[in-house]
Amino acid sequence: MIEKKIFLSERDIPKQWYNLGADLPTPVLPPLGPDGNPITPDMLGAVFPMNLIEQEMSAERWIDIPEEILEILYRWRPAPLRRAVYLEKYLGTPAKIYYKDESVSPAGSHKTNTAVAQAWYNKQFGTKKLTTETGAGQWGSALSFACNLIGLECKVYMVRVSFDQKPLRKAMMATWGGKCIASPSDETKIGRKILKEMPDTPGSLGIAISEAIEEAVSDQTGNTKYSLGSVLNHVMLHQTIIGLEAKKQLEIAGEKKVDVVIGCAGGGSNFAGLSFPFVNDKINGAKIEIIPVEPSACPKMTKGLFSYDFGDCAGMTPLLAMYSLGHGFIPPPIHAGGLRYHGMAPLVSQAILEGLMKPRAYDQVKCYESAIIWAKTEGTICAPETSHAIACTIDEAIKAKEEGKEKTILFNYSGHGLMDLLGYEKFLAGELQSYSLSDEDLKESIEKIKDLPKAEERRTGKW
Amino acid sequence: MIEKKIFLSERDIPKQWYNLGADLPTPVLPPLGPDGNPITPDMLGAVFPMNLIEQEMSAERWIDIPEEILEILYRWRPAPLRRAVYLEKYLGTPAKIYYKDESVSPAGSHKTNTAVAQAWYNKQFGTKKLTTETGAGQWGSALSFACNLIGLECKVYMVRVSFDQKPLRKAMMATWGGKCIASPSDETKIGRKILKEMPDTPGSLGIAISEAIEEAVSDQTGNTKYSLGSVLNHVMLHQTIIGLEAKKQLEIAGEKKVDVVIGCAGGGSNFAGLSFPFVNDKINGAKIEIIPVEPSACPKMTKGLFSYDFGDCAGMTPLLAMYSLGHGFIPPPIHAGGLRYHGMAPLVSQAILEGLMKPRAYDQVKCYESAIIWAKTEGTICAPETSHAIACTIDEAIKAKEEGKEKTILFNYSGHGLMDLLGYEKFLAGELQSYSLSDEDLKESIEKIKDLPKAEERRTGKW
Repeated sequence: MIEKKIFLSERDIPKQWYNLGADLPTPVLPPLGPDGNPITPDMLGAVFPMNLIEQEMSAERWIDIPEEILEILYRWRPAPLRRAVYLEKYLGTPAKIYYKDESVSPAGSHKTNTAVAQAWYNKQFGTKKLTTETGAGQWGSALSFACNLIGLECKVYMVRVSFDQKPLRKAMMATWGGKCIASPSDETKIGRKILKEMPDTPGSLGIAISEAIEEAVSDQTGNTKYSLGSVLNHVMLHQTIIGLEAKKQLEIAGEKKVDVVIGCAGGGSNFAGLSFPFVNDKINGAKIEIIPVEPSACPKMTKGLFSYDFGDCAGMTPLLAMYSLGHGFIPPPIHAGGLRYHGMAPLVSQAILEGLMKPRAYDQVKCYESAIIWAKTEGTICAPETSHAIACTIDEAIKAKEEGKEKTILFNYSGHGLMDLLGYEKFLAGELQSYSLSDEDLKESIEKIKDLPKAEERRTGKW
Repeated sequence: MIEKKIFLSERDIPKQWYNLGADLPTPVLPPLGPDGNPITPDMLGAVFPMNLIEQEMSAERWIDIPEEILEILYRWRPAPLRRAVYLEKYLGTPAKIYYKDESVSPAGSHKTNTAVAQAWYNKQFGTKKLTTETGAGQWGSALSFACNLIGLECKVYMVRVSFDQKPLRKAMMATWGGKCIASPSDETKIGRKILKEMPDTPGSLGIAISEAIEEAVSDQTGNTKYSLGSVLNHVMLHQTIIGLEAKKQLEIAGEKKVDVVIGCAGGGSNFAGLSFPFVNDKINGAKIEIIPVEPSACPKMTKGLFSYDFGDCAGMTPLLAMYSLGHGFIPPPIHAGGLRYHGMAPLVSQAILEGLMKPRAYDQVKCYESAIIWAKTEGTICAPETSHAIACTIDEAIKAKEEGKEKTILFNYSGHGLMDLLGYEKFLAGELQSYSLSDEDLKESIEKIKDLPKAEERRTGKW
């Protein structure tokens, strides 16, 4: 009998995070300030607490997880590793499909892993309030959850289109004491400016980030900091507990190797969390395919430019070296709100450039089809973001069948879709649109960042 | 270090259900037909398949769980037993609080346990379609989930007030292929009649049951059967896997005894599922307090009459011997839709009469207060139904503190509240009403069943 759930006891939880930055063949390019020079830790101090800035810039391979953070994570961690035997059977594939179930966290996704860590470090530093943005609402919920447990105020700017699609998210954040408002809002200068220019805008993560940062830096006491749910190095770091647990669990399941590792990728954090420990194996010679999956509506990895670009819409952040569609890019209102970000984490971007992983883009309609197959076989309802990983997993499992190859596939079940059922309803009613970024829109969007510092030239030493 | 999650491997799942009916000091009174005589199995055949009718009437103590049913349950079972250490700490109680986490099922509650069993037995019998009612939506979702996996059509009549409060439930059922409509509807005679008399009625479980039964018995081919999510003996039976798993897990946790067992109770199934194996211990001499918790808005156990009464509004079901507020009772629109039923399972009713358990009633405002304490300590968002069990658990833990007694409390975390967040929003906005059934309304409602056969007299042999 195959056990379909592989648990890890609390005492076997990983005690350190893994920093891929220490192992990449070429180091990640530093963030740049407005003058084009690498920024100093002090320059980030208005936005982030110094202990997290140190982590952001750390070159250490392993970083200890404070015991107090573990004590909070035990509420749901270690998260189960599961085997999708019912999907395997349905597909008739010789592939073994494992997935790490991050949907078990109280807020419903992997986001709580870094939310708890960031809230904890901020509390240590003396921060009283955190501001942030949220797309689908997963991150805002996770940070509200963490701030409540740790004793911080929390204010969330939620992208308008998701705010309207998912009204329950606001109530969820409120239950944990978080305050959530739609972005663009009239509570910030940048929000008011955008509302004036584009009163009907669906919003974007870039805009919401600008608003959250503006509120943080406007607090003269310094007691308000900003928290980002993805993209940055320290966020990727906190998520590696996912992949580190998965490795221990695969060992318990008797798996000696993994052939394919898959995750959906918006800013990159759930994907990085699962995959980075396996990227390490790959750097050390293991043969593993590692696939970040993005929506064809927002294809920064497969169609974007590797460039220095701002993390937000208003250009308030440092410049990051990453795959980007341009910080002014406003993606169509696909249901996977968490995958609508214009850029990809520098660590993931760099690993793609090094050939350590190979991105793919999927249309949301195909992803919903996969989500329905999943719901009707494995039984659970996944987040629209997660459906991108499932679509790719199904393709890989079918490929294994066609090739007659045994294969072990591992993907990240990053979150459940219980708050996102309106997307399912639309899909079932045949009302869901396909979206692919046109070459014309791509060109127009990327044109706007062509004068920013060239990252590829610096990376390859041609600058 | 205290492990906060106690897992059971799939190979240790209980292989038999426990039938409390075999052990009650006085047997449960038989259901009666319209003529006042005990009904025969054949008379139930228009509504239920014969294999489930046999289970309903079985006097066996242990009934084997078919391997194919276990194979479906493995998707989420064994469910975790958890220790609420964070709540314990917050309350400063010497009590140990354990809870069985039934929210991990794909449909979000314990209801899937019997949904899978009922769908499977119906499939064996040759049924093609199941009809049912649902209150909060938990049961309708669970049956849609089960019918999809087993290959049956599913039609759900959802109580109007919940249908409106929880629009995502319909999409959830649709994702699994179930069809959900608001009740009363214009698809049945009884529905049309009620809509004509009370066009603005919030509906009730009693009405929805009448509609679902009408649809089933109207199918001349006999291929449509009705499925009930609570109340009946076979439903209680299927749920006992909860308590049987919990016993094994408490042993793993090193607990030699349990002092208090708590569950919320609408029709009684999650409560029975957890508690019946412990009732068995109590019958055999163990000292355990067993507490079913109901809403003060629908207090059949604490204020109702033990009587023969119909299970539905229109009087289409057999008469059951149970605590009841009268089958015409329409409870106020409290958010715990699953606790708005007028009657209590005959097995639970009988156990109360035998002094094996002692019910309590709680107002929904106090329950939401407890749900918020829970969310802010343990971290998760519970169903409004479950909050009744939590409110009582908190009271018991505080009592233990006041008495300075170590105590082991076990309650059933019957479901999550992720689809019920509007209730939280209302509560947080101070807009949630308290409801207690007035003596006048109680009298009026019970008056209507006073001419039905007297159950207490039959039970005590005075008839």
